[in-house]
Amino acid sequence: MIDLLISKIEEKQTPTVVGLDPRLDFVPEFIKTEEFQRHGKTPRAVAEIFLRFNKEIIDQTYDLIPAVKPQIAMYEQFGHEGIRAYIETIKYAKNKDLFIIGDIKRGDIASTAKAYSNGHIGEVNIEGESVKVYEEDAITISPYLGHDSVEPFIEDCKRYNRGLFILLKTSNDRSGEIQDLVVDGEKVYEKVGDLISKWGRELIGERGYSSIGAVVGATYPEQLKELRESLKHVFFLVPGYGAQGGSAKDLKGAFDKNGLGAIINSSRGIIAAYKNQIYANRFTEKEFAKAARQAVIDMKADIQSVI
Amino acid sequence: MIDLLISKIEEKQTPTVVGLDPRLDFVPEFIKTEEFQRHGKTPRAVAEIFLRFNKEIIDQTYDLIPAVKPQIAMYEQFGHEGIRAYIETIKYAKNKDLFIIGDIKRGDIASTAKAYSNGHIGEVNIEGESVKVYEEDAITISPYLGHDSVEPFIEDCKRYNRGLFILLKTSNDRSGEIQDLVVDGEKVYEKVGDLISKWGRELIGERGYSSIGAVVGATYPEQLKELRESLKHVFFLVPGYGAQGGSAKDLKGAFDKNGLGAIINSSRGIIAAYKNQIYANRFTEKEFAKAARQAVIDMKADIQSVI
Repeated sequence: MIDLLISKIEEKQTPTVVGLDPRLDFVPEFIKTEEFQRHGKTPRAVAEIFLRFNKEIIDQTYDLIPAVKPQIAMYEQFGHEGIRAYIETIKYAKNKDLFIIGDIKRGDIASTAKAYSNGHIGEVNIEGESVKVYEEDAITISPYLGHDSVEPFIEDCKRYNRGLFILLKTSNDRSGEIQDLVVDGEKVYEKVGDLISKWGRELIGERGYSSIGAVVGATYPEQLKELRESLKHVFFLVPGYGAQGGSAKDLKGAFDKNGLGAIINSSRGIIAAYKNQIYANRFTEKEFAKAARQAVIDMKADIQSVI
Repeated sequence: MIDLLISKIEEKQTPTVVGLDPRLDFVPEFIKTEEFQRHGKTPRAVAEIFLRFNKEIIDQTYDLIPAVKPQIAMYEQFGHEGIRAYIETIKYAKNKDLFIIGDIKRGDIASTAKAYSNGHIGEVNIEGESVKVYEEDAITISPYLGHDSVEPFIEDCKRYNRGLFILLKTSNDRSGEIQDLVVDGEKVYEKVGDLISKWGRELIGERGYSSIGAVVGATYPEQLKELRESLKHVFFLVPGYGAQGGSAKDLKGAFDKNGLGAIINSSRGIIAAYKNQIYANRFTEKEFAKAARQAVIDMKADIQSVI
């Protein structure tokens, strides 16, 4: 899968990923009003609202970006209707030839991990029928349970040409509480980095990167740089740019000398751009997706300045 | 919430939890045949099959047990139809006055954790309407991202009288890969234990236990005993009994001198009991739920022998 992702990055000439993490707050009133009238103030209405919102964002940005990253929590909180919107969002984005990273951060013991893997990146077997359910190209997962919890996902990566981004150093304030504990002179996240590197060895593609990648927050630029240097084959998914406080100069260390090695996600900064004062004067609420497009163009230029 | 759980344990005189983790393999042919005829070999059919299966198991066991623990992965893998079956299973079990532990093992940065928390143990706000979606009494979560990823859940525990079981020492073979790394002479899981204890301090109930509990596998009996001694206020959810290899004597250390302090989960050993040679001679496939009842009775006696 990693070669597919890299080819899309090169085609669009940017490692920019749009985080499709809708919130009702982000959605223009006219969409909400229509759907609440149709379905009441129900999860069903929210699903329709999120779908319309996402589709317009995708329509206005797909030609500029290699990938989108829907955060499943934003959908899951609204129950099965939310999950339906998540699945339909993926389907719509795939039809626009976008690479899909499902931000699901699952982590469980082997037999349970297998169920998650079947559903998200593999196939479920229904009495002899193989059914692909979510169809993400890659997903995020947690390493806390160790190798046997990761193994079923890796097997499906091989079998179905999919990829993983395993949590390594996350973007939040208190990520150090466990991840920065020091073990034999090395931090836990460094140990996890070594494990991720080892787990991905069999899946290194033509460009020298593995389909088993890692999540490293833009909010920790020094660690990002050190990890880039020590984990040569590990591709990074970097959240935390924009709304979470990471800037382009924080990202410099994420890339190798060819400008590869990382994809950078922005969610709120793109999808709610029309609410940001930078764009609010230039775009009306109805033009929210055009504002998102402009925010992508600006983000691309910003990132390009450090690659 | 912890006092509610303890009152149910005392009422049913057992800490036995039935894991509602259905697999098509576990479901009797007559149920599958009917639903596949009705809905084809589709996720819709699987949802109906799981629901019928779970309802019969619940009907035959609810008077014997304090709680059930559905594992969301088994449902999620079948997409939105699966999630609907998960939610309806919870609803059905709640109507039988069972305590519900959603085994979801979510873990993400604060704003995302808030979304999971809203959906699972709190409320989502739909344009001023508060909607409870999943309505678990307690859920499992992962600590790997640190306190700010746990905080939103703890807030909702206070607000909605819910509880957490945070992953501490999991039951799988390779759980030590990260959890047993040694930091300043202490293992990572011991550090996590201290954090869980600290995080739960404000939620200690009348019986001395906190609504912020921990997951500790029956497959690590020594650690279970040590953790019981060091984490006085932390209630344990103990998976790994039965099919995963843990036996009753492995559980002895999980309990305090009053026989409290832990709940013990068994999934396959109960819900697929009719496939086990111990029960296969006494129960037909149609009596699968009666076999589950007998397996619960046997498990209760087994656990009682060490409390």
